[in-house]
Amino acid sequence: MTAALEGIRVLDLSRALAGPFAAMTLGDMGADVIKIEEPQAGDTSRGYPPFWNGISTYYLSINRNKRALTLDLSQPAGQEILRHLVSQSDILIESFKTGAMERWGVGYDELSRINPRLIYCAISAFGREGPDKHRGGVDILMQAYAGLMSITGEEGGPPVRTGTSVVDLSAGAHATQGILASLYVREKTGKGQRIDASLLGTTVAWMTYHAVAYFASGQAPGKMGSMHPSVAPYGAYPTQNGFIVMAIAFDSHWRAFCKITGRDELADDPRLATNPARIANRALLDDVMAEVLTAKPSAVWQQIFDDASIPCAPVNTLDTVLRLPQVEYLDYVTDVEHPAIDGLRMPGIHLGMSETPGTIRRHPPALGEQTSEVLREFGYSESRIAEFLASGVVTQGSHS
Amino acid sequence: MTAALEGIRVLDLSRALAGPFAAMTLGDMGADVIKIEEPQAGDTSRGYPPFWNGISTYYLSINRNKRALTLDLSQPAGQEILRHLVSQSDILIESFKTGAMERWGVGYDELSRINPRLIYCAISAFGREGPDKHRGGVDILMQAYAGLMSITGEEGGPPVRTGTSVVDLSAGAHATQGILASLYVREKTGKGQRIDASLLGTTVAWMTYHAVAYFASGQAPGKMGSMHPSVAPYGAYPTQNGFIVMAIAFDSHWRAFCKITGRDELADDPRLATNPARIANRALLDDVMAEVLTAKPSAVWQQIFDDASIPCAPVNTLDTVLRLPQVEYLDYVTDVEHPAIDGLRMPGIHLGMSETPGTIRRHPPALGEQTSEVLREFGYSESRIAEFLASGVVTQGSHS
Repeated sequence: MTAALEGIRVLDLSRALAGPFAAMTLGDMGADVIKIEEPQAGDTSRGYPPFWNGISTYYLSINRNKRALTLDLSQPAGQEILRHLVSQSDILIESFKTGAMERWGVGYDELSRINPRLIYCAISAFGREGPDKHRGGVDILMQAYAGLMSITGEEGGPPVRTGTSVVDLSAGAHATQGILASLYVREKTGKGQRIDASLLGTTVAWMTYHAVAYFASGQAPGKMGSMHPSVAPYGAYPTQNGFIVMAIAFDSHWRAFCKITGRDELADDPRLATNPARIANRALLDDVMAEVLTAKPSAVWQQIFDDASIPCAPVNTLDTVLRLPQVEYLDYVTDVEHPAIDGLRMPGIHLGMSETPGTIRRHPPALGEQTSEVLREFGYSESRIAEFLASGVVTQGSHS
Repeated sequence: MTAALEGIRVLDLSRALAGPFAAMTLGDMGADVIKIEEPQAGDTSRGYPPFWNGISTYYLSINRNKRALTLDLSQPAGQEILRHLVSQSDILIESFKTGAMERWGVGYDELSRINPRLIYCAISAFGREGPDKHRGGVDILMQAYAGLMSITGEEGGPPVRTGTSVVDLSAGAHATQGILASLYVREKTGKGQRIDASLLGTTVAWMTYHAVAYFASGQAPGKMGSMHPSVAPYGAYPTQNGFIVMAIAFDSHWRAFCKITGRDELADDPRLATNPARIANRALLDDVMAEVLTAKPSAVWQQIFDDASIPCAPVNTLDTVLRLPQVEYLDYVTDVEHPAIDGLRMPGIHLGMSETPGTIRRHPPALGEQTSEVLREFGYSESRIAEFLASGVVTQGSHS
């Protein structure tokens, strides 16, 4: 076996980020992923700037290892083609508003009758049932609605969005888990099932310790900038030329910090000697940290603290991150061959699997790039494919 | 079959957040998870405040559906017990610094000889190989090191930590994916494998569109508060009594916004009529949004925009989120029975699986709560268990 999901066929009807990210993960593991889009504009992410040789960088980042087919699901002929594809596939992923697939006659009940082995994964904003099941929602709205924004940013400052789309990405990651667990179950039972992942459910789940601390105390957490409620110094502190992040959870690290910065007297100061004392005297601590750390540039401190094994890190910008020797060494970023983009690079395979390593085999496809090829593989004759193309229920695209 | 992972045994040697979260996910899916801790203090997270009846809320939030065993891996007798447990288990998760397991004689090579079906998952900060493989790192350090802090916060402001531990949680989610894929593979090949997840690799992967946009332009993204580089208005805008988050990606939504707020003239203003124009005139747009939205409180706007299907959301705090009707309806938070805590609540099962739904069957265990019970199940006699307890290589604990 060369790849974990070799021989597994995925129909990816999802759009934007959560679903395409989930499907790409399955593709990285070796599945044959067929991205199905409506024939006019396709996935909404194809329109998101900035563009690279006319192609959305957003789209490029989450659609490798897929082939593209267009299909007009508003036409009965399109629905019939989907039912036929499902009869020969293992997994279907969709992120339409709750009820849309049923209205097209391709809901889970119908599709699982056609193929009882089908694993059907719906990704929704609010979940499949309940008073809000019909509400839509995108990453930033759920970052606000589910509480993430209320705990991110400076105390007293405006709400801050986490800089990458963590709500979409985490929902996609959990959808992938449900699909993989269902593949394992299917080996034992021979039966598929329906998976439901939601942006709301995932975000609530990721509140972990904040949620239980709230139930214990009745106190909702607030915004703390880069600081931590229970550990200090812990967060970003100013240096001569920027910031450095310290994570001093142990008093032994605090004593080492005082010694290496030439401020031995602080180690014995009862206002700062223990973690509880430092939390109680946070304003004093912040003054001391600023006084000490603004004396040298970040890189000099980094070396000093690394040598003393005191936990700290630079606040790297992405240009630095994406060229780190460690990132290069482990191919955490990688080149991807593309017919229209010389020098395409993107995050690579980051999960190690010793027996079935992930691979990148296909560039992110143009809209409908493999429509005819895929229909042929599913058994349609050349004349039927020509009819479909003539009627507009499918379209054929290319990068040229 | 009642649960996806029924009959699967997991040995969870990991600490703090990423590994315990991965192991809890497997437990939620029905696996028998045995949490293995060193006998003195146990998992570091047991010491993280705040506490509920003396028990860490942090620990409680990520350790349900596990039984607890203590084991001193620095003693040869402890290493021998671990090798025996591995011979009868399916999965092992660890998050020690790279090389620690090998030094104890229980590295992957040794353990996979004992049990070739073993799925061994290592979660590290920087990855298994490469120049930085020996460096440790916790969530906040990697939020800084891998670039997330450089894109989170106000433009020109200090670095901001995403309010929950997204780096640990995402690494745990991807570790779980590798484990589940390996279970599926093992059904076909009969062989286990080694999985490597890292905080650095996961965070780089989650940069998705930012990474490709950087490779296209050579420009590293910066901090934008709650705003979006390519869409406007999109982000948190001030109202009379707080903030509301708008996500107006389509000009049709902009026209609806202008109409419903009684500012029809803005819809035809060429400086604001299209998304590119609104991005080019962001300062003007921000003034207009503030002027319009500060006239009413957030809740009134929410109702108005909901009725007009204009995408927006309140910035909810966790006390509101954890009591939302939709959250209650789908059991996204749930009660967990606990011998020492009346009224324990925490995030529930958020991933729907129609045939093999997740369940919560066990409270987060006390240190060593099931030591004797587990050793008995693995075939040790009462006299051997008494010897182990007397020597201190294992300890028995309880909640009383």
